[in-house]
Amino acid sequence: MDASGIAYDPRSTTLLTFQDQVARFRDGSDSPRAYLERCLETHDVREAEVRAFVVINREGARRAADAATVRYAAGRPLGPLDGMPLGVKDLYETEDMPTGMGSPIYAGWESHRDAASVYALRRQAGVVVLGKTTTTEFGFSHPGPTTNPFDPARTPGGSSSGSAAAVGARMVPVAFGSQLMGSVIRPASYCGNWGYKPTYGALNRGGGHSSLSQSHLGLHAGSLADAWAVAFETSRLAGGDPGYPGIYGAGAMLPPAQRPRVLARLDGPGWAIADAAAQAALDDYVDRLRAAGVTVLSRADHPGVAALEEALLPCSENSMTIIGWELKWPLAAYREKGEGLLSQSIADRLEGWEKITIEEYRRAVEIRNEMRRRLAALRPAIEGFVGLPAPGVAPIGLASTGNPICNVPSSTLGAPVFTVPLLALDGMPLGVQIMGYPDGDEATCAIARWMGETAI
Amino acid sequence: MDASGIAYDPRSTTLLTFQDQVARFRDGSDSPRAYLERCLETHDVREAEVRAFVVINREGARRAADAATVRYAAGRPLGPLDGMPLGVKDLYETEDMPTGMGSPIYAGWESHRDAASVYALRRQAGVVVLGKTTTTEFGFSHPGPTTNPFDPARTPGGSSSGSAAAVGARMVPVAFGSQLMGSVIRPASYCGNWGYKPTYGALNRGGGHSSLSQSHLGLHAGSLADAWAVAFETSRLAGGDPGYPGIYGAGAMLPPAQRPRVLARLDGPGWAIADAAAQAALDDYVDRLRAAGVTVLSRADHPGVAALEEALLPCSENSMTIIGWELKWPLAAYREKGEGLLSQSIADRLEGWEKITIEEYRRAVEIRNEMRRRLAALRPAIEGFVGLPAPGVAPIGLASTGNPICNVPSSTLGAPVFTVPLLALDGMPLGVQIMGYPDGDEATCAIARWMGETAI
Repeated sequence: MDASGIAYDPRSTTLLTFQDQVARFRDGSDSPRAYLERCLETHDVREAEVRAFVVINREGARRAADAATVRYAAGRPLGPLDGMPLGVKDLYETEDMPTGMGSPIYAGWESHRDAASVYALRRQAGVVVLGKTTTTEFGFSHPGPTTNPFDPARTPGGSSSGSAAAVGARMVPVAFGSQLMGSVIRPASYCGNWGYKPTYGALNRGGGHSSLSQSHLGLHAGSLADAWAVAFETSRLAGGDPGYPGIYGAGAMLPPAQRPRVLARLDGPGWAIADAAAQAALDDYVDRLRAAGVTVLSRADHPGVAALEEALLPCSENSMTIIGWELKWPLAAYREKGEGLLSQSIADRLEGWEKITIEEYRRAVEIRNEMRRRLAALRPAIEGFVGLPAPGVAPIGLASTGNPICNVPSSTLGAPVFTVPLLALDGMPLGVQIMGYPDGDEATCAIARWMGETAI
Repeated sequence: MDASGIAYDPRSTTLLTFQDQVARFRDGSDSPRAYLERCLETHDVREAEVRAFVVINREGARRAADAATVRYAAGRPLGPLDGMPLGVKDLYETEDMPTGMGSPIYAGWESHRDAASVYALRRQAGVVVLGKTTTTEFGFSHPGPTTNPFDPARTPGGSSSGSAAAVGARMVPVAFGSQLMGSVIRPASYCGNWGYKPTYGALNRGGGHSSLSQSHLGLHAGSLADAWAVAFETSRLAGGDPGYPGIYGAGAMLPPAQRPRVLARLDGPGWAIADAAAQAALDDYVDRLRAAGVTVLSRADHPGVAALEEALLPCSENSMTIIGWELKWPLAAYREKGEGLLSQSIADRLEGWEKITIEEYRRAVEIRNEMRRRLAALRPAIEGFVGLPAPGVAPIGLASTGNPICNVPSSTLGAPVFTVPLLALDGMPLGVQIMGYPDGDEATCAIARWMGETAI
């Protein structure tokens, strides 16, 4: 990628990576401070256009990077992520920066503490928290000013707009995002990132203001190795949500690539509205998988896949019933704070959400449970599910962050899913998504690695 | 009960009730404003000794009570709780009062919003939020200044100290508490309340700062009718936690009393340390249940009860592993704010909690799951479980809020449980607890009603 931000090519565009630089921190030929300064230089060149960050703490980051530099020099880094610059979606609290949640109601609000996952990475893993990345209003739909790093006329996607753009613009190697409908996997596709939405509950959302039953803390990264390591270390140190087991796996090192024997393509309700060019690109990728010896089933081949596809058809409307019921508080309380403090789009939706009854909510949860049962039934036979992470490349315009429809299945199912940055159309990135089974993150990651490393 | 706060007698001591007064609001012979003024009078007489409240909003409550009075006069109350004064445990946010969480770190902290359940009751049900009740530090062990309303030399219990004491002192008919280990059911017993800890997740904890996997929002009340109605309406309006179905039932009106056919006594690990007098009182109550025709099994009669008793033996240590892992954030972040801002007791425990690994946590959750499976296995055969809600009456002294060991089973199991204020020892209240099965709150409530209404 060049600094003008055009002509994305998955074969030649490289984003920032961190862990593969650590040997140079150890031998003194590079340092976390120098790494950070390169991030800051890129930030300073690109930020006026990309607008990925709400705020950065330049001096705080430098102090943290210096401390990491000293630890490497002494041969005592805190772990595999010591000194790694991180962007944090502005729904998650940070001790040293305000948490604005994309809303004027919280502009400048300071909680004076780090969210659980930020705390663990910063204090225990030595991560350098560079800044807070733009989110749509409360992580829902109303966009911020962020542009796509590969074309400023296009959206970066949302709600994790700033995290995806900051990674795509090479400002940071990794950023925390969060996904409710399609807020990590889609913007990762739009911005050429590796995206990783873990199993529901696998990363602690404490202090994250994203507590809904389909909200997930997730990652944008320039490499799968960094995405996996950050997720694994976050889980190991901060845990999952209360009651959840976190991410199972052998360790922070990327699991070995695993060529799958049997995948399925899961088109979901997004396929029907996907661009013809995106459909063709996925069809072609599936053909190449088959040519490489991977069985790729579809709904026509397997009744269980057909049953899952059929169950998922209403997943967007069903999710909106669940989300609306769960989001009406605190939004209704915020509405009373004054005219115009909520965006019109949220205010309008809220009126509908307030009409949802607890019986309708329970029914929607039961429908979701049935979708999950149909996924679980496929576990013995199918290792993962490939599909489009978005209906096409990032759309032109900043008024919308694009359609999350391709990601609602994985959010609904609570299943781990990765965006693999494999494709491009018209000089813009397009990922392939690979979804697995709840608590099977490591196995899905191994397939994602194989997809990323294997030329097929 | 007399204003001096002594000589509790379950046959003659009556606490405040609300719904049974509503007919008089409708016919104009009483009003929510007059009801509130009586609460305030009692508050002003008792508060210097009982110290149940951190703060009250006298004028805000009066305005809300006046608005309810107008609605009754117009024949249009908002529902069965319109005008009901409510105390709110000071872990739960309130729009008009600070939320201090029993910690100097949050003294005076204002979130400027109501917690989800407070919002629903205040805005949709017409409840009059009188004030914030004392909690132990962050709902854990370090006590506040509250005294027992029936003997100021004794603890009211904790962590919902102020809520239990405010109801016991007739300052309010109902107060929100929350239970992690034994924080509702035990103080309710100590203070002569009806206590109700619903099924895990059944009442929305949003804005409540009690998000652990054994934390529950619960109720202290002067009557079972009010406890049930508040819980049911809270669930109906605010929902349960995200992903949870809330409280199932026919409505806000107390379910008909149900004489159980088969109960079991669940002694749990608390029995061994209970006072001999409390043991004798429970044994006598069980004898009376049997004399009234209720089969009361015990571990000697039923292998499934024995299996549950056996599984529960380590429930306190196991809970502490779970709670410690889940509580280390945010406490570790708070510790950095300065020397002495955490109590020594929490600071000491925190050091141990930080040594817990995610593998140990997962093991503890799996042990808890096994306890839950053993409970579920009894569902076809046994309708509920009777036991002591505390090892005895409220202990003398304010340095400890008493031992939660009798309540850890219901917290661990996530099962609904009620304190029925049936017994007394030495002029102090002692309840009987009746526990049911997750999502079976209504059936358990019907048994609790029968226990409360039937002289046996």
